[in-house]
Amino acid sequence: MKWYPNTATEAGFPIGGIGTGTVTLGSDGDLRDWEIFNRPNKGGQIGYGFFALHVEGQDKRDTRILRSRKTPPYSQARGYHPGWLYGMPCMERSRLSVEYPFADLEFEDDSLPVKVTLTAFNPFIPLQAEDSGIPAALFRYKIKNESGIPLRTTVAASLPNLAGYLGNDEFENMLLPQGARNRKKQQGGIRGLLMENPSCLPEHPRTGSMAILTGDPEGEIQETWLTGGWWDGMEDFWHHFSQDGSLGVENTANSMESWLGPHKNLRVGSVGITHMLQPGEEKTFEFVLSWYYPNRIKSWDEDTPWKEGEETEKNYYASRYQDAWEAGADLLCRLPELEKTSRLFTKAIYESTLPEAVVEAVCANITALRSTTCFRIADGTFLAYEGSHERKGSCPGTCTHVWNYAQTVAWLFPELERSARRIEFGLETREDGCMPFRNERIFGSEPEEAVPAADGQFGTIVRLYREWLLSGEEEFLKELWPKAKKALEYGIRNWDPDEDGMLSGRQHNTYDIEFYGTVPMLNSIYYAALAAGEKMAIYFGEEETAERWRELRQKGSKKMDQELWNGAYYIQKLEDIGSYRFQYGEGCLADQILGQFFAHVNRLGYLFPKDHVRQAVYSIYENNYRDNFIGAVNAQRAYAMEEDKGLVLCSWPQGNRPVIPFCYSEEVWTGVEYQVASHLIYEGYTEEGVRVVEAVRSRYDGFKRNPWNEVECGNHYARSMSSYGLLLALSGFHADVPNRELSFSPKTKEKDFSCFFCCGSGWGIYRQSRDDQGRVTRKLEPLFGNLEGFTLKGGEQ
Amino acid sequence: MKWYPNTATEAGFPIGGIGTGTVTLGSDGDLRDWEIFNRPNKGGQIGYGFFALHVEGQDKRDTRILRSRKTPPYSQARGYHPGWLYGMPCMERSRLSVEYPFADLEFEDDSLPVKVTLTAFNPFIPLQAEDSGIPAALFRYKIKNESGIPLRTTVAASLPNLAGYLGNDEFENMLLPQGARNRKKQQGGIRGLLMENPSCLPEHPRTGSMAILTGDPEGEIQETWLTGGWWDGMEDFWHHFSQDGSLGVENTANSMESWLGPHKNLRVGSVGITHMLQPGEEKTFEFVLSWYYPNRIKSWDEDTPWKEGEETEKNYYASRYQDAWEAGADLLCRLPELEKTSRLFTKAIYESTLPEAVVEAVCANITALRSTTCFRIADGTFLAYEGSHERKGSCPGTCTHVWNYAQTVAWLFPELERSARRIEFGLETREDGCMPFRNERIFGSEPEEAVPAADGQFGTIVRLYREWLLSGEEEFLKELWPKAKKALEYGIRNWDPDEDGMLSGRQHNTYDIEFYGTVPMLNSIYYAALAAGEKMAIYFGEEETAERWRELRQKGSKKMDQELWNGAYYIQKLEDIGSYRFQYGEGCLADQILGQFFAHVNRLGYLFPKDHVRQAVYSIYENNYRDNFIGAVNAQRAYAMEEDKGLVLCSWPQGNRPVIPFCYSEEVWTGVEYQVASHLIYEGYTEEGVRVVEAVRSRYDGFKRNPWNEVECGNHYARSMSSYGLLLALSGFHADVPNRELSFSPKTKEKDFSCFFCCGSGWGIYRQSRDDQGRVTRKLEPLFGNLEGFTLKGGEQ
Repeated sequence: MKWYPNTATEAGFPIGGIGTGTVTLGSDGDLRDWEIFNRPNKGGQIGYGFFALHVEGQDKRDTRILRSRKTPPYSQARGYHPGWLYGMPCMERSRLSVEYPFADLEFEDDSLPVKVTLTAFNPFIPLQAEDSGIPAALFRYKIKNESGIPLRTTVAASLPNLAGYLGNDEFENMLLPQGARNRKKQQGGIRGLLMENPSCLPEHPRTGSMAILTGDPEGEIQETWLTGGWWDGMEDFWHHFSQDGSLGVENTANSMESWLGPHKNLRVGSVGITHMLQPGEEKTFEFVLSWYYPNRIKSWDEDTPWKEGEETEKNYYASRYQDAWEAGADLLCRLPELEKTSRLFTKAIYESTLPEAVVEAVCANITALRSTTCFRIADGTFLAYEGSHERKGSCPGTCTHVWNYAQTVAWLFPELERSARRIEFGLETREDGCMPFRNERIFGSEPEEAVPAADGQFGTIVRLYREWLLSGEEEFLKELWPKAKKALEYGIRNWDPDEDGMLSGRQHNTYDIEFYGTVPMLNSIYYAALAAGEKMAIYFGEEETAERWRELRQKGSKKMDQELWNGAYYIQKLEDIGSYRFQYGEGCLADQILGQFFAHVNRLGYLFPKDHVRQAVYSIYENNYRDNFIGAVNAQRAYAMEEDKGLVLCSWPQGNRPVIPFCYSEEVWTGVEYQVASHLIYEGYTEEGVRVVEAVRSRYDGFKRNPWNEVECGNHYARSMSSYGLLLALSGFHADVPNRELSFSPKTKEKDFSCFFCCGSGWGIYRQSRDDQGRVTRKLEPLFGNLEGFTLKGGEQ
Repeated sequence: MKWYPNTATEAGFPIGGIGTGTVTLGSDGDLRDWEIFNRPNKGGQIGYGFFALHVEGQDKRDTRILRSRKTPPYSQARGYHPGWLYGMPCMERSRLSVEYPFADLEFEDDSLPVKVTLTAFNPFIPLQAEDSGIPAALFRYKIKNESGIPLRTTVAASLPNLAGYLGNDEFENMLLPQGARNRKKQQGGIRGLLMENPSCLPEHPRTGSMAILTGDPEGEIQETWLTGGWWDGMEDFWHHFSQDGSLGVENTANSMESWLGPHKNLRVGSVGITHMLQPGEEKTFEFVLSWYYPNRIKSWDEDTPWKEGEETEKNYYASRYQDAWEAGADLLCRLPELEKTSRLFTKAIYESTLPEAVVEAVCANITALRSTTCFRIADGTFLAYEGSHERKGSCPGTCTHVWNYAQTVAWLFPELERSARRIEFGLETREDGCMPFRNERIFGSEPEEAVPAADGQFGTIVRLYREWLLSGEEEFLKELWPKAKKALEYGIRNWDPDEDGMLSGRQHNTYDIEFYGTVPMLNSIYYAALAAGEKMAIYFGEEETAERWRELRQKGSKKMDQELWNGAYYIQKLEDIGSYRFQYGEGCLADQILGQFFAHVNRLGYLFPKDHVRQAVYSIYENNYRDNFIGAVNAQRAYAMEEDKGLVLCSWPQGNRPVIPFCYSEEVWTGVEYQVASHLIYEGYTEEGVRVVEAVRSRYDGFKRNPWNEVECGNHYARSMSSYGLLLALSGFHADVPNRELSFSPKTKEKDFSCFFCCGSGWGIYRQSRDDQGRVTRKLEPLFGNLEGFTLKGGEQ
């Protein structure tokens, strides 16, 4: 287990479900980045959302905010806002560890007679998007009496009523509407507080509710703290709580002595749990914080102003719950089952024999799926940005060329990716087959021009094939097949009009520029699409189409291999390259045979001579991997700096770097690093592949960057989810659900291998051992779903 | 000299004049916080504003951005923007030191054959607000050839054209209007670039110009970098510059290969200086960056949207210059004289015998005067916020109760404070004498209710007296005297209606709440005002008024001493205190005899029995000073944390802390710490006073906080300028310009004392020595202004 101390200030684990938003638990135990309002909110601090501890035995009492000490710098233009409680007594130290989705936090404080630990999570169950999409977070404190006397121990959870919350003003005061109402509730064995604001318009994008719930009957509830012009409520709370762990009396009377300023609408409430702890005894203090913000702006641009009377788009979770209480109660009522199944996943993946950095890369980037980067609307449709800016989504429309790389969602929640394909083919692809690389019609907008990206257009054909392999849903494939054919034919017509099997002309792509000439990366995706198309055509009995695509692919890939192979890797060929900008010519492009990675993931075989593929991918490692970036010349965005290690998008080992190559050529993208690492592993360069993964993860070490937030153009960047490819490559897993076949061919620890696997029908653990005589034993251990009737095949590729 | 290494990430020195805005030089040599647009811009990064170095000798060449390596964390949602150049080769290490206004930065890089140092400053000459208010910054690089061969060395200054700049978009791209135009200029021995945008409306608040100038004839100029959709310009710049130190050719042609995105309006220009350096030779490469943004929003709220046709308020510097070129040329042409006089100030204050922390506290907070917190409008009127938020001023209207504490401006630029008094008395004070604590009429707005603050109202009377003492300007005093009398009488009527000499009723004050009952702090200011008023009444021959005020003061202060003295300090007295919020009762308030500090500063004598004053101020030190804040209970804003040292606003050494005392009672404000420290020194507790100052400065150590930005409610907070009181207290300086008398009574190093002094007529160094026989030699060394006819008196107080 990797532990992040509280001095690892960047380490913060976002807790929340798919399409629900998250709240982040810092390595210091603080709750930050409240991103629960249907849009990003990185760095967005609320006030008075915290847990506090009171311990009392004989004459001694101790009271603490359950957060550890801050580390410098302390630069804040107004000091730290009172609501953040950084002036209050807290714990000496803490450390955080995550085995997805479970965060464990250990506090240390030698001056306390108790030991405090916290487990926090939101259920995560592959293939169960609903149960992995509850807008809530569970916090389970365990407190152990390490003294020799009985201790009366209280933990209190406090939250401000954030119904209608509009962000903070320039003083960091929360902008809150009038009319907030906190109510005690009891429902069966559950008690707690529901926080609403009946004065908010039901359709307003910030309308919503929050709740604190517990199944523990022992303890007080304070509906509403004392209100006032300043921080009267906290002074009063601490006055009571630090005396005996009790909560204050209800008193919403305001003070007369001061201007009723920015805090007049603030209504904080607390739920306490109190237990006697005998010497040596440990008890649990368990809370659920839940939230419910049903309305999204009906646009990709969350800055679009909302006017009264305008329709909003409902969140998917809003179709399942009525308010935050219902959501929280659902989690609490079904907690044993939800936690047990979540822990099966955790165990399966963390106890695998995969290298630690790989497990970390696979699991840490699940956070992208459960971040503000992704969301679901009322009918369940899955939509996503590329990433998340601080306050809004970054680059809209489930961008085809970025999501191309991502594997996590497709393999763990195939229904979500199927829904994305339905938008791309069903709604967005034009009658002529042109597929804009960002979907816009979902919110009723129609761009002037439908701009396709060559990599996105072809890659999405491969992804359609993947979704079918993983689900075996014939209806799904039938529904999209006609448009898919059109899309592939459009690609041929548009970029390979002479049908020589080589793309040409203006080729827009994921580097946000146009490539010209022949570009191996885009050609390789073209061939992967033709190969996938061929498989699907055969399935539908369209032999002629299959034949045509097979021939195109074979002709093209052969030609490309002849024309673009420079003896070590594939180059771009473009006459008069000097008169263009943004090309790379003889460079060694990390993505040069990206299509081969797609082909491997979907077991479409080698698109080029195997020895060239192997040599090309090794050349990428050899030329583009850097042990540090000191003295590097990068006039582009800086993702790797100073002592960082990483793999750059392009290098020019033989010189001839254009003065202005494509605008990201010197950059380091984790999504590309993972696809290269996966591909290295597929080709047998396991050690090199793992080294690249370790490089990425060493950049995200909690001190330099957040382990649970790999960035590119925004936080929680979708491309980072190519990391799931590492698991696929290392296990050599292939799922053919239509034919009910699973197969594995591990690339590591073949003598004693175990790995998590998941296809659309179920998931579990695959175990393989090989004895000294080379006899291989294979075993499937299903943990979830229904894998009956599946055959386990050998790992030939 | 105190040096801040580049790892002291918080250390950044703002360079700019009074009312001009600033650009900050980081300890890494980077330029950040471009606050030159008539409003704050902390954290506001522009792109491509940098200096670069090229060195070439025989076969070897080196190229560097003149900035040292970054330290973690590297968390940025989109990596670092290309314009910030964090991916480019830079210097290994650097360190920064400031002797106000001169910043010295030393680079170290063992791999380079040269040693690079930088001196950067903006002229600062007490009593010369104009020469201390030029919108420009001088950068003087010295480069020494430490190799054995001749080196061709180029330094290039680059800037983007920021005319009409509107801030950054969510990608951190600069929002720039079309039509930017960079022009080479030559004027006498000065050459450089003027950057304008003729398409901007002349009255638009963001209209303006920038310039790079040099008096050095050797080197190239590139008007406009290559433009393009991405970072084409920087790629091209580096291509040329790294080859031979040359600048690229003019080429504003755009590229065809890409979407013309956020960079299409970016026009960067560069000015180079090239010299041959012989082995061992050192040469200077000197640049001026200047700016000119003439228009302010005609409101205290800079967020007020501006509409075409609306009037704006002109900056004062706009009445002196036509554009950035003129401003920069003025600085360059007069540089020898401006620098020489600035260095006289630096020498006078840094070579004084004052403790290092005191000199630091006095000088570092001059930055508040030359920050966005303060500004001047066209007629020269001086106006100020309390401080600066990130993007707007914090708390408008030259707040009387905050500016009460500040001494720096009054003593170094008395004309500015006189202008502020003219607004407060002349424009804002109502006919009944009520003085709102924030001026609003200057921008034509009339508040519904004129709210006075007791401390602000009375303190401003004392400040009027101070401005007269420092200037001797009879016209000024005559002009404001009638309103001043009304203001003092209003205070009596409003808060001391029974004229028992004790304030009562609702007393609004600098803690943003109402005090009730009798409050020693407010009473002490009342008595200081009565004492100052008495002096002025006597001057005007109004004996009856003088008599009335003297009697009130004597009666009151005696009564207060009797009623509020608890044996150790003065307490608040309020019946039924439990039914109020925000009072402090028996607490030991740091500001409890703030009026006595004002009285000392203006030599108004003791307002209370000297032994009580001495004991009270020592009690403050004893009870309110903290060696650390670990375990402290502060539910308010956190300005001092963990291992920080500091002095809290209030303590309750005898218990009885109200549950909800005034809302800042646990806070730590540098402005209050300095007034307490000054007062400790006045009372002979020099060691204790200096310890408090050292505590403040140890919090602002460059690692925790910025040494040149003491915050309270915002950056560069005005109250911090109470630090000038330290110099007054330690030197015992008193200026009586009306009577042409100066006197000193040092509280430290009396055997060999030297100190900077300044009154409205001139400034210089005071030197005093005492031989073993106790014979004292005093010497005045005038350095600026006209101090002829002044007599030097003994230091009796």
